[in-house]
Amino acid sequence: MSQTLVESFGIAVRRLREANGWSQEQLAERAELNRSYVGEIERGQAISSIVTVDKLARALGVTSATLLQKSDQVSQQRTVRGIVLAAIAC
Amino acid sequence: MSQTLVESFGIAVRRLREANGWSQEQLAERAELNRSYVGEIERGQAISSIVTVDKLARALGVTSATLLQKSDQVSQQRTVRGIVLAAIAC
Repeated sequence: MSQTLVESFGIAVRRLREANGWSQEQLAERAELNRSYVGEIERGQAISSIVTVDKLARALGVTSATLLQKSDQVSQQRTVRGIVLAAIAC
Repeated sequence: MSQTLVESFGIAVRRLREANGWSQEQLAERAELNRSYVGEIERGQAISSIVTVDKLARALGVTSATLLQKSDQVSQQRTVRGIVLAAIAC
């Protein structure tokens, strides 16, 4: 559960970053975070605090709430995809 | 900035908990968190991760996004109150 959440958050960050056409380095600079830390967050290898969520959201031009909403959407999409794949397998 | 954010999040959690008429212990049980940790979060003495935000939100019957939105509202109210107090002092 937690792992899914952390991974979905990372995917949401990556999607928003790519939508802006930024590299991880550019996002890291704007968010005042370390580039490798941003990479870990995007890969679901680091668990963000609300302070990090706030920094990333500001850099990406959205609110923290919107960023978590996008993360929730990613979670739901992944769950649906998992169910469809399970159905195909059956 | 970060401290305001962490404090506002704590106030938002406390308000939602009190709106449910729960003690810190009751919220902690429902969220599967330590009671003293919930106390620290509410007092702005502990920085929550997105996993903790998710646990608290589920326990409180809201989404993580809604919880952060409420936290943002608390921040804004505190800023406005600060401006009003500064204006009265001037």
